Parts: sequence; structure tokens; C-alpha cells
Amino acid sequence: MNESSAVLEHLSRDYNEPVKDPLWKNITLSRGLLQVASHGAFQKLNGVKQLGPTYLVYPGATHTRLNHSLGVFHLARRMMVNLLGGGGSTIPGGEHAEPAVSEISLEGVKAFLCAALLHDLGHYPYAHSLKDVGLRSHESLTAERILQADLSTLIREQVGADPALVAAIVDSSLSHQSKDLGFFRNLLSGVLDPDKLDYLNRDAYFCGVPHGIQDVDFILAEIRPYADGLVVTEKGLSAVESILFAKYLMYKTVYWHKTVRIATAMIKKAVLLALREVVLRPEDLYWLDDSEFSSLTRKHTFAPFQLIRRVSERRLYKLVTSVAFDAGNPLHLRLQDVQDRLGFEEDLVKAVEGLLGRELPVQSLIIDVPEPINFEINLPVLQPETGEVTVYEHSRSVFNRDSVRSFANSLRTISLFAEQSDDLKRALVKINARRILSEGLR
Amino acid sequence: MNESSAVLEHLSRDYNEPVKDPLWKNITLSRGLLQVASHGAFQKLNGVKQLGPTYLVYPGATHTRLNHSLGVFHLARRMMVNLLGGGGSTIPGGEHAEPAVSEISLEGVKAFLCAALLHDLGHYPYAHSLKDVGLRSHESLTAERILQADLSTLIREQVGADPALVAAIVDSSLSHQSKDLGFFRNLLSGVLDPDKLDYLNRDAYFCGVPHGIQDVDFILAEIRPYADGLVVTEKGLSAVESILFAKYLMYKTVYWHKTVRIATAMIKKAVLLALREVVLRPEDLYWLDDSEFSSLTRKHTFAPFQLIRRVSERRLYKLVTSVAFDAGNPLHLRLQDVQDRLGFEEDLVKAVEGLLGRELPVQSLIIDVPEPINFEINLPVLQPETGEVTVYEHSRSVFNRDSVRSFANSLRTISLFAEQSDDLKRALVKINARRILSEGLR
Amino acid sequence: MNESSAVLEHLSRDYNEPVKDPLWKNITLSRGLLQVASHGAFQKLNGVKQLGPTYLVYPGATHTRLNHSLGVFHLARRMMVNLLGGGGSTIPGGEHAEPAVSEISLEGVKAFLCAALLHDLGHYPYAHSLKDVGLRSHESLTAERILQADLSTLIREQVGADPALVAAIVDSSLSHQSKDLGFFRNLLSGVLDPDKLDYLNRDAYFCGVPHGIQDVDFILAEIRPYADGLVVTEKGLSAVESILFAKYLMYKTVYWHKTVRIATAMIKKAVLLALREVVLRPEDLYWLDDSEFSSLTRKHTFAPFQLIRRVSERRLYKLVTSVAFDAGNPLHLRLQDVQDRLGFEEDLVKAVEGLLGRELPVQSLIIDVPEPINFEINLPVLQPETGEVTVYEHSRSVFNRDSVRSFANSLRTISLFAEQSDDLKRALVKINARRILSEGLR
Amino acid sequence: MNESSAVLEHLSRDYNEPVKDPLWKNITLSRGLLQVASHGAFQKLNGVKQLGPTYLVYPGATHTRLNHSLGVFHLARRMMVNLLGGGGSTIPGGEHAEPAVSEISLEGVKAFLCAALLHDLGHYPYAHSLKDVGLRSHESLTAERILQADLSTLIREQVGADPALVAAIVDSSLSHQSKDLGFFRNLLSGVLDPDKLDYLNRDAYFCGVPHGIQDVDFILAEIRPYADGLVVTEKGLSAVESILFAKYLMYKTVYWHKTVRIATAMIKKAVLLALREVVLRPEDLYWLDDSEFSSLTRKHTFAPFQLIRRVSERRLYKLVTSVAFDAGNPLHLRLQDVQDRLGFEEDLVKAVEGLLGRELPVQSLIIDVPEPINFEINLPVLQPETGEVTVYEHSRSVFNRDSVRSFANSLRTISLFAEQSDDLKRALVKINARRILSEGLR
Repeated sequence: MNESSAVLEHLSRDYNEPVKDPLWKNITLSRGLLQVASHGAFQKLNGVKQLGPTYLVYPGATHTRLNHSLGVFHLARRMMVNLLGGGGSTIPGGEHAEPAVSEISLEGVKAFLCAALLHDLGHYPYAHSLKDVGLRSHESLTAERILQADLSTLIREQVGADPALVAAIVDSSLSHQSKDLGFFRNLLSGVLDPDKLDYLNRDAYFCGVPHGIQDVDFILAEIRPYADGLVVTEKGLSAVESILFAKYLMYKTVYWHKTVRIATAMIKKAVLLALREVVLRPEDLYWLDDSEFSSLTRKHTFAPFQLIRRVSERRLYKLVTSVAFDAGNPLHLRLQDVQDRLGFEEDLVKAVEGLLGRELPVQSLIIDVPEPINFEINLPVLQPETGEVTVYEHSRSVFNRDSVRSFANSLRTISLFAEQSDDLKRALVKINARRILSEGLR
Repeated sequence: MNESSAVLEHLSRDYNEPVKDPLWKNITLSRGLLQVASHGAFQKLNGVKQLGPTYLVYPGATHTRLNHSLGVFHLARRMMVNLLGGGGSTIPGGEHAEPAVSEISLEGVKAFLCAALLHDLGHYPYAHSLKDVGLRSHESLTAERILQADLSTLIREQVGADPALVAAIVDSSLSHQSKDLGFFRNLLSGVLDPDKLDYLNRDAYFCGVPHGIQDVDFILAEIRPYADGLVVTEKGLSAVESILFAKYLMYKTVYWHKTVRIATAMIKKAVLLALREVVLRPEDLYWLDDSEFSSLTRKHTFAPFQLIRRVSERRLYKLVTSVAFDAGNPLHLRLQDVQDRLGFEEDLVKAVEGLLGRELPVQSLIIDVPEPINFEINLPVLQPETGEVTVYEHSRSVFNRDSVRSFANSLRTISLFAEQSDDLKRALVKINARRILSEGLR
Repeated sequence: MNESSAVLEHLSRDYNEPVKDPLWKNITLSRGLLQVASHGAFQKLNGVKQLGPTYLVYPGATHTRLNHSLGVFHLARRMMVNLLGGGGSTIPGGEHAEPAVSEISLEGVKAFLCAALLHDLGHYPYAHSLKDVGLRSHESLTAERILQADLSTLIREQVGADPALVAAIVDSSLSHQSKDLGFFRNLLSGVLDPDKLDYLNRDAYFCGVPHGIQDVDFILAEIRPYADGLVVTEKGLSAVESILFAKYLMYKTVYWHKTVRIATAMIKKAVLLALREVVLRPEDLYWLDDSEFSSLTRKHTFAPFQLIRRVSERRLYKLVTSVAFDAGNPLHLRLQDVQDRLGFEEDLVKAVEGLLGRELPVQSLIIDVPEPINFEINLPVLQPETGEVTVYEHSRSVFNRDSVRSFANSLRTISLFAEQSDDLKRALVKINARRILSEGLR
Repeated sequence: MNESSAVLEHLSRDYNEPVKDPLWKNITLSRGLLQVASHGAFQKLNGVKQLGPTYLVYPGATHTRLNHSLGVFHLARRMMVNLLGGGGSTIPGGEHAEPAVSEISLEGVKAFLCAALLHDLGHYPYAHSLKDVGLRSHESLTAERILQADLSTLIREQVGADPALVAAIVDSSLSHQSKDLGFFRNLLSGVLDPDKLDYLNRDAYFCGVPHGIQDVDFILAEIRPYADGLVVTEKGLSAVESILFAKYLMYKTVYWHKTVRIATAMIKKAVLLALREVVLRPEDLYWLDDSEFSSLTRKHTFAPFQLIRRVSERRLYKLVTSVAFDAGNPLHLRLQDVQDRLGFEEDLVKAVEGLLGRELPVQSLIIDVPEPINFEINLPVLQPETGEVTVYEHSRSVFNRDSVRSFANSLRTISLFAEQSDDLKRALVKINARRILSEGLR
């Protein structure tokens, strides 16, 4: 029996421990991965909501990183079954696959699936939003945790995988001698990866909107291993287009919904000020779940932490004004930097204090600059009859670099949020806040 | 590589030709089965509605025998994957499996999956309703068709299966020397078979009612091969209960919906009279699709065929009265026989003619006696920790022989249907039609 | 314009504030109810999971009391539209409706819908499980909260309803002079109430099981106002049967899933001991959300609180043995009482300590006795053609008092849960724990 | 009570006759419309598949024009409820509505809903594909049928609407003095009309693809009456973008799926030749259902009708080659004309005959030129806070006239289809068929 048959038999026989999932119904783990998933470090993700404060707008959006992680594992396993069993090696382009799929090792597959399950282990509340204030990435924390004795022993002895490879698949700053490493990294994180397929579908399901729903069966049938990653067949182009547009609509209606941005900006501002005043240190935030994050900020009397309490009671700031982000505007470029933005907010507060004739807490005004967002299209396209492979840009897709850039641009808006109060509102009109967002103070 | 590994590898590698299905999404055929499915004999099932005239009540119920057949194949394949890969042989009770699942042959599996796909090949319009008037069963016609040269060559050469085994799995009157025959027959037709799992879910989906929806993933995870068939785990008992109750509710609200019974009874009466008068011969009805059935009856001037035209124009008879079927009532027992029933209907027509003082066509009144219906519970139950197997009756299910008999009894009703006309209605009241259904004429 | 037309116009015009829901899609509130729903007291329900620790088994089950409350409001509004608009007053039995639906007041309807939205306001973690240890019911807390100044002002001024009537609809211990009170209470809590319709569907959706899904449109079309409550049409009987069986299956597979009961029993045992030792007072538990409940128990060093931490880390007790609850067994009757059960557990711990030769903490063993459960069938049945109304027992339903009692009995099991440890397990076998659950200690 | 209240009360009270639909669950008709829907003329649509031969690719796509028509009625009714009740008249822009929604008459609304139900009454098989060969439009046939005595009596007496207005709403070539006519026509046929909302969702449901699914509740909440039609709110722009993209993806993957185009082209070619040879006259095709269309063509011995039989047996032509439609290519412009195309096909057949040295039937080669397709974006956009209304092109949508034109262009492909035969294939390569599609013969 060659390696690929051994892997296929492993995939057919050893995943029999079911966990029920609202999206994918039965997710079946191996006995080893069931032990990993029952470990407290993974269970902790039950306390971290996938979409943070989005439940304030979409009350169903209470799903957790744990549920999402199970889904990513499930799609990764199905993807592996399809790539190995799906006649991938018989297509004309199959010989370009490097490493040949038929040589992918059983141990490698086990490590890949373990990485898919654990890829969010280091996630902490608002990890994505706090990336730009110098906190460690969740990938780096994930890798660190995987390599600690308790989990690495479980992974080695019960799963049969090398913890160092698992960690390296998740954290691209690590190296590992496995020849499959690049392939596995590209599978886990690319244009058509199990992470995106799970979150688009799952977030749509729990929010109750149709935009994110994808035809996963079709997508998995239209990808093939190629070089150090994947190709999609020409027929499968519609799936890529569907994912690009779904991601755009989900950002527009869910991830960057105005109210979600306001709530997130309030929490982030509180944390930023706390880090600046050393009320909190970065390492205080790692490994927390949502409930511990609340407890932590409730313990302190630091005034800006009122912002966090306000969010939980739904006493939110309001949008004052907004302008489209303009990459040619030096002010906008400057506002992308957190420290510069804090400074600008302080100047704005002072200017308003002058008009109001009273003092304002520094956290009264928040300028929100969404992070740059990327709609990847770097997926080669296969003409299955001829075996010819072209870059996406040369395919017949209706979307190209320009159209996806226009998606990103239309989403990115610089906004000013403020407490609801009549005199503050009047002052912000008087000072022409909208103009200030474009031209700066004075 | 042992046989079971070879079968698993076949199941993992050789089913890559997708057909999109609204229920199960991608159904993947082998190349051989794709050729079988593209054959005109199978394509013909695209013209046979799964639920006959049910679309008159549930306008979405236009799904075909072809779509259902693909679904049965799909669930049969998934069941096979689970039985072979699902650790079935490692459970304590595993050694009772006979033939041991690990000895099931690759050729046998191919024949079984082909039988699942083709099991309804001989279906003709109203085949189920015409069983009791001496027409051939669709299983027998299916087997006959499979054994004809064109299909049997395809099956032998492209699918790699023995057509005689395929035919014998479908038609239990045939014999075959394969030691797996009994096992495959029990898989295809039992308490938890792919046919029932597909039709309950599919009929619910197309009608738009929730009653038939089953947790197929859970069911497939809770069955094991045992002796010449299946056991269900104790945990899986809830799935059996769910299926029993779903079947009851689907009969009550869909399959035996009053209007569906009226339309079916009208068509059946027309065909019965045509067969009696030798306007039609049984073999005229075989191999027809819905459209050819309509054409056939439109061609003849035989008066009772008006009943069929009326159904298509939705000018339906009305329910006059009904009584519960009583197995202790000799009249009811007698009315189960088609010829006796025709005679009784004629006597009733004559009695009414007397009252009305005008002639009535013989097809003016129809007595409808639903066929006996069976809610099977003969599935052994496995205690997985101990390996102990008990009969269903001794399990902890809330349903037993008595409760499922009460389901069947509550559904079975003898009804009198008649054309809508005021004087006919009055005459039927006067003659006390309801009493006649219990006590007979006089 | 008569009152009923005024109410219908209110229902058609004044509910335009959408909230997105995964089940019912757009739920539309009035402006007044939107303010009520944005109030911190209601928002707090975002922190209370509908199904407590069920997410340990069904990872999707993280939905909240807030989301459920919105759903109950939505179904209550739709029910009201159907009862008023649905030709209810034209059916033969319509004249029995008392108060005549056509006389239901606009203010009454506003109070009813407000009560539907707020009915769970006083819910605290494990409120259902702690009912039998003398804590206040959540209905009573809900009514108290509604009557406090902030909410009652909102309700009076923004919703246009009488807070006292809202409170009295929820809490049946309160009285109110409104002639509609009985009707509204029966709507909100009965065989076919919006609470049950929402939770069966919602819990099924978030768990990912089909069992609870109901055909809500059909149900709402088949109910009519009658006397001081509802009737269901004969055709609608299948809906009642479906709900009864769905409730049974949801208890079997979700609400009383073995692992859910273990986790709940561990938390309850910790709270019971804390209340007995006055580490906690009942009022410490009211008004908490899940996160505050965790914080509260983490603050104390009380040893049994380890049980709560263990649940959050998924280090659960195991089932040792179980017996069916037997209403004729004096031991079983005695074990229903919390204090008696605690005493019995202590005796059992002592007996095991003797065998083990070491001390055991009192919380090492837990006896679990599910509360009595009721499958209500007291819904009259209407024959719409004749206007005849019969009691459910005399209808043609396949379920009767006996069959629903058998549902309840089959679910109710007395179990012994214990920490996983080899010597403890051996000791419990030796002492014959199973016999002890039937016959007691000696 | 003003007119708008009377209409709202009608909509709340008079639609209580349920028909079950898989998409929208209970569709409730008035008693009058139930009689219209039970009429044979409407029931006939049960025999016309919504998507013609699409079931050859998507086996679930057997849904009928009747089921779709019920869905369009349902969405039209919900749209009307939302426009009248949804606070539309209170928005700043409300005063522009002309006729003011509050003045829309009860009779007008009844006519509009009747038109929604009956809009496809004149549909015959392949009506869309045969439009360009001079057959009458189905709208014109629909209007003619509505005005015949049987239906117009039903409409006048049972529905309470003016048949002439019903007909004029469907068929824009008719005139009527009703001041609401323009408004109703725009509702029934526009960017966000009930027809498109039903078919996108329904076709997706029956095919089993997610692309067409729309958030109908959201869309209905974000439209307002404006001038003689609708506006969408700025927030609702995402719904318009979603519909545009869904339509594109449904054309790409379903409506213009390669195999669907082949089957359709084969049938159309047969009909074209039959019309040219006067084997059929246009009026032979009107009022047929699918089954009668088959019978009609089976009766004749006209050789090209073999194409139709081949389709039903799934013996389809194959794609030889295709080129993108180029509006600057005179050949492509010429091929849009049916007669020119027939001529070109004949020339091509002759050229191939020369190479082959044998005669070819004229129907051996088919050139397929998809009709021009339109992605409408002419919907004004409302800023609800300010009441400002802008044209779509000036809104912040990511789609504009150019991007939707690129959707249309990417879909439109000129193809050559031919019978599968080795020598024919070789001849077509030799003659360079691909070049011929761009440059013509010689």
C-alpha cells in the first residue's frame, strides 16, 4: 500500500467520534483529537465569541471560536479527502504537484488536521482589533501553547503528530524541516481555505443573513493540488467569485456594520488608554475569555473602562460623521497609526472643550480607521481538459485586481464617534467635524 | 491490503462525478454509474413524479423518481462507508457480523450501489396503487430491465458488477449464489434503509413540511453490521423513534392527505374499469412515464377516462363520508378486495339511481380503502459497551408493537368519494351513506 | 372603526423596527418596544445562555435568553394577527370566544406583546434547576423588575401599556382587573404557546438537530380563540402531535442529554451546599448573568465551588449507574426532596469512605433526580364545519394521557454521578451502587 | 376609515386560504383568488416546468410555473403590506409618492394581486427562447386569456377586481384609465420586483445551489413608494448589489449552464425548422404544457423533431467550440438574427459535407447566440434621514453601469454545438470552426 492509500484509509477509518454542529452536522474527530479538543486549553475557546460585540446588532451571533475551530478542522479533513481521493493525480496538470500528493505523509496529514483544529487556540478578546497596538498575534500565542508540555505530549502520543510541525503550520514565523510544510500552510490559509469557508458560512448562519453561504461541496470538488498549493478549475471560478463577493457583503452588513464598529472602537479605545497608562500590560490580555476580559476591566477604577461597561449595557456612542478613506490624503495615512490617532483625538477634544466651555474626558471622541482589507485573488486556474494553468488575472473571471480593490475601498470609512449629548453634537457641527476628518484641525 | 481496505479505497477514490442535489448537495457517481445514469432507461424516471398527484395539494411536490434514485444511491454509499470504516468491526458485537464486513467483496459493493441507483427503474405511474389489481411489481420489472442486454453490458463492463446480483438485490424472488446477497437486501430494505431516509427527507423538502426531516448523519453513525443486517445502538433508538413518527406524520399530512387520496382513487378507478373492460392490458401500463400515461388515456374514448382528465384540471370528487377501518368488520375485510369493491360500488350506484330517478355512470361513486400499512420495528438494538444485542421490543423505546399499530390504525379510513352535485349529495344523505360504509347495503 | 380593526391597524402599521433573527429573519418591534429592548435590564439577557451548559455537548448552543425573548415576542405578535384577522370570528364556534376577540382592547394587546418580550427578564443562571431549592421563580422576579420605576415609565409612556397588566400576564400570582387577563395568560402559556414554539425551533437550530422544528405557519393557521383561550382545528391535531413528540425527543437528546445532566448536577450541587452553609444567600444569585455567576463562585474559596470550575474546563463527573424513576418506590419519592437527597448522598459517601479507607469530600458523589415533566394535552379541538368542540382526549389523536405519560416516564432516570477515579469506581461496584439506587443503603 | 386603512384591513383579514409552499411556507389566498387558482387555466401551469430542460443538469429543478406564480403573488402581497403599513408615508420623501400610497384604491390592490398571480398564465414551453422567432409574447397571451369570459367573470365577481386592469398590469401594450396603473406595473416588473425575488430564491432552492438566496425580509423593509414606483434606502443598497450578483451567478451556473443551452438550442432548432417548413404554425405552440408539447412533436415524422426526442433521452449534442460575443463584430451582429443564423448554419453544413464526402442533415450543427441580457440598476436611492433621493449611478454602490455590463458580457458566448461523431469532430477541427465563429466562412 502506498502512502496515499495509507492516508486515505486513515481518513476513512479513524475519524469516528462525532460532535454535532449546526452547520456541518456530524463533525467526526479521531480519538486523539477528541482528547485534544476536550483539553481545558481548547475548551477555553467556548468563552470567546467569534464575532465579539456583533451580537448587539445580530442577537444570534453568539457562536464561539471553539465551534468555528471544529468547523475548520472538519472542512480541512474533507478537503484532504478530496485532494487525495478526488482523482487529483490523474488530471493532466497533476504532475506539477510538488510535493506530489501521493507522497504526503500520514504524519503530515495528522499534523495538518491538528493545526486546523488548534489554529485559534491563542485567540483572546478583540485580538484582531488590537493587533495594531503591538500585542502579540494570536498565531504566535497559539504556537507557544501547542509547544507546552501538556498539549505537546497529547499531540505526540495520542494524535501521532509532531507538535513542532503543528505549531509551524499555524505560525509562519517558525520553521520546520518537513517538506510538506509549505503545502499545508497554503491549504490552511489561502483564497479558498477552510478557515474562510467556515467563517463565511457560520457567521451567516448565526447572524441570519444569506450573504455568506457557499456551496462547499462544489468548491471542494473543483480544487486540485498544484505546486505548493491549490488550483481551481475554470468551472470553479464561479465559486471564487462567489466567495469574493460574499466576503464583501459580510464586511458591509456584519463585520463592519456601523454599530459593531462603534462598540469595537469604544472597547479598543479603553484598552489603548489603559496600555498607554500602564493600567494594563499586553500580557494581561492574552489567554482571557470574554468573561475574564470583563472581570479584568471591572476590577479597575480607570475611568475609560466605563466605555466597556457602556457597551455591555448598550449605551453606545453615535456616529457623528464619516468620510471615505483616501490613500492620497496625508492625514488619513497618519491616522492609521494608533499613537498619531490618539494624539489627533486629544487635539480634537481640546478644540471642542474650547467651544463648549467645559472639560471633556479624553475618551469622549473616537476616530475609527478600519484596517486595510485584502480580497485575495492569487489562485491559479486550471483548464482540466488541457491541463493548462493560468494566473487568476488572465482567467475569464468578472472580478480582477481593480474590482476587488474597489470592494475594499468602498468599505473603508473614517468615522468620528461621540457620546450622545446635545451640546457636544452642536459643538461638533460648529467645528465642522466632517471637514476636519478630511483636512485636519485648522 | 485486505478486502475491506480495497473497498474503502474504492469508495474514497472512484466516486468523483458530481450531480447536484437539493438535499444532499453533491452526489458523486463513479464513471461507470454515470454512464448507467445517463442511459435512456434511467433518464425515463425524470418523467415519473415521486408522489403522483400530490402536487395538487403541495405544489412543490414535483420531484421525480430519478432524483429520488440518485438520493438512495448516495445514502447507500455513505452507509457503506460508515459500516466499513466506522469501527464497526471493533465493537464487542462486531464478531457476530456474518458475513464479516471485512469479507464483503468489492464486486458485491459495486452491485449493491448499482442496485440502490436502479431500484426504481421499473416504476410506472401509480405503480404502488395498482399493485392490488394484479399488475406486476415494479421490483420485478426493474430486475427484468437490468438483465436486458444494453444495461447488463454497461453494468458488467463499465461498473464492474454482476447484473444478476444487481437484479437479485432488488427483486427478492430471484436467487443468486453470492454470500452477501442477504446482507445487501437487508441494507436496501429495512427499518433504517436508504430508500426511507431519502424519501422522508426529500418529500418533506419538496412539500415544504418539516415532518420528514431526519438527522441522517446521526443515524449513519449509530448503525453497525450485525448478522445478516444491521443493529442500531441504544443511543440511536431516538433516531428509530423519530423515523417511525415521521413516517406516521407524513402519511397523515402528505401521502394520505384527503385530496391526494381522492385524486388517486379517481385515477385508479378509471384504470380498474379499463382493465376489466380490456380497454387496457397490464402491459400497456408498464414503462410509461406520467406524460405517456396521460397520452394513453387521452387517446381512448372510454368514458371513465374522464376521471383522469378531471384530475388534471383539478375538478375533483368530494368526500361524502368516512369511517375508521375496522379489522373485525366483515364488510371492511371484503372491501379490501378490488373486485368485491367494484361490485359493492355498483350496487351502491344502483341504489342511488333508484332514489334519484336517473342513471348514474358507474364511476360516479368511489369507495376508497387504503392498503394496510406497516411500521416496521424489527431492528435489534446494541448496547455498545457490553456488546449485548436485544430485540427492539425489549429495548427502552417508547414505541412498541402496540403503539405503531395504533399509528397504522388511526391512518386507515374507508371513504366514499362522489362527484359534486346537489341531488347526488342529497340522495347519499337520504340513503345514509355513512351507515352503509359500516353495515353494508340493506 | 371597531376595536378589532383598530388593533389590526396597529399591528399592521406600528411594528417597523427590524431586528435580524436567524430563525424568524426580520423581527419587527414598535418604537416603544425597541426602547424597552435597548434598556440595560433586557440587554442583560444577552449574558444568559438559553440552555446553560448544553454547549458542552452541542457547541452551537450558545444562544441567549435575549434572542429567545425576541422570538417569543415575534410569535406572539403573529399569533395575535392570525387570531384577529384569520376569520376567527366567522367560524361557527366563534361566538363562544369570551371575551369576544373583537372586544380585545388595543391597550391589552400592547401589554400582552410587552409581556411576551419581557417574560424572561428575571431569568438567572440555572433558575430552572434551582427552583426546587426555594429560590424565587423567575416569573416573580420578572414582574418585580417590570414594576420598577425605570421600566414601568418606559412601558407606560413609550409602549402605551399598563405595567401592572404586563406584570400580571407573566406572574400568575398577581391580579389585575383587566377582563382580558385570563385570555392573555393562556395565550402566553399553554399547549401551543409562543414560548414553546420558539424554544423548540430555536434550540433545534442552534444545536443542529432536526427534532424540534415545527411548521409554525400551519400551527398559527389552525388555532382559533375559544372561551378564555384557544382551540385547535381537527386538521391541526397533527401539529399538536408533532409538538408533543418533538418535546419528547428534545428532552431525550438535548435538554436531558446525559452530559448536560452531569454538568448541571455538578453546578447545582455546588450551589446547594453553598446555600446550606450560607456561603451564598438566594438573593446573591438573582439578576446575575453567566459571567457574573462564574465570577461570584470564583471569588469564594468554598471547596465545592471546584465543581463549577471543573465544568468550565470540561472535567466532568461520569455516570456510575442509573435506574428508571419508579413512582411506587418510597426511596425514589424521598429522593425528590433536595434535603433528603443531600442526606442520602452523605450517607453514601460515608459508606464508600469505609470501603476506600480514605476520606471523600461530600461533593464526590451526586444523585440526580430529574424534575417531573409534563406533556400538556389539555387543548380543545374544533370541528370547523360543524363548530363542535371536544376535549383532546376524545379527539382522534394517536396520543392520549397514557402515551404522553409514557414519554415522561421513559425520560425520567435516577442517576449516580461520580468523579473519575479507579478506586472510587471499584468501591461503587463493590457496594452495588445500582441496587442502592433502588433499595437504599441497607 | 381612509382608503389606506381599508386596504390594510383587507390585507389583514381576507387572505386566509393556505397553500403550502416549500419556500415561503404558508401562502394565503383570498377566497376569490383560491377559485381563480383552482381554475383549469391556472392549473395548466402545473404542467409547465419553470426552467425547461434544466432538470437534465440539476435533477431537482422540476418546479412549475404554477408554483412560481403562487410565490410571486405571495411576495407581491407582502410588498403591498410593507409599503402601506411600513411607515412609508412618514418618511421625508414620502410626499413625492404619486399617486400617494394612501390613495391607492382597494380595487386597484385586488387587481394588482390578481395580476401577480396570473402574470405567467400564457406561458408555453420555451416561450422565452422562441420570442425571437416571432411568436407572441406570453404577456400578450396572458392578457388575452384573462379577458375571456370564464376568467373575467371569476375575477370580477369573486375577486372584486376589474379584469381589464388586471390584464393591463401584465401586458404593457394595453391601456387603462386607472391612475395607479403605472405604479402597479412598476411594482410587478422592476429592479426589485416580486417576480425576480421569487425566481432567484426558488430556482436556487430546487437546483440546490446557494447563489440565488436573498434576504427577502430585509429587502421588503428597505423599499418605499416613490413617484410612480419604488426607492430603496441607502442601507438597502447591499440588497440590490446582492440581487445583481445573484442574477449573474444564476445565469452562469444554472440558466445558461452549457448543457442547458445545448438542450434548449436543440429544441429551438427543431421548432424553428418546423415553423419554416410550416410543419407547425405559431398558434400550435400556444397554450401547451410540457407533455402536450412532447406529444405534438412525437406525432409528426418531421426529421428535425428527432432533436427533441434526443433531449428527452439525454443524447445531447456536444460543444465544439465557442467565442465571446463581440458587439463590434459584424458577423456576431448578423448571427443574432434567426433567419441569418439558419442560413449561416446551412452554409457551414455544406462546407463540412464537402470535407466529409457525405451528406449531413441540416440540423447536425447548431450555432447558439444567447439573447442580450440586462442587469437593471435604474432604482433611485433614498437617504432616509434627509429624504434626499439620488439616482443609482450616484449612490455609493460598488456596482455601476460598467460593472453590470461586464457581467452581461462575460456571460454571452457564441457556441457551436454538434452531434458526437468522430469524423464530424475531425472535420470541424480541420475547417477551423473556432475561427469561423469569429471571421465567418472564408
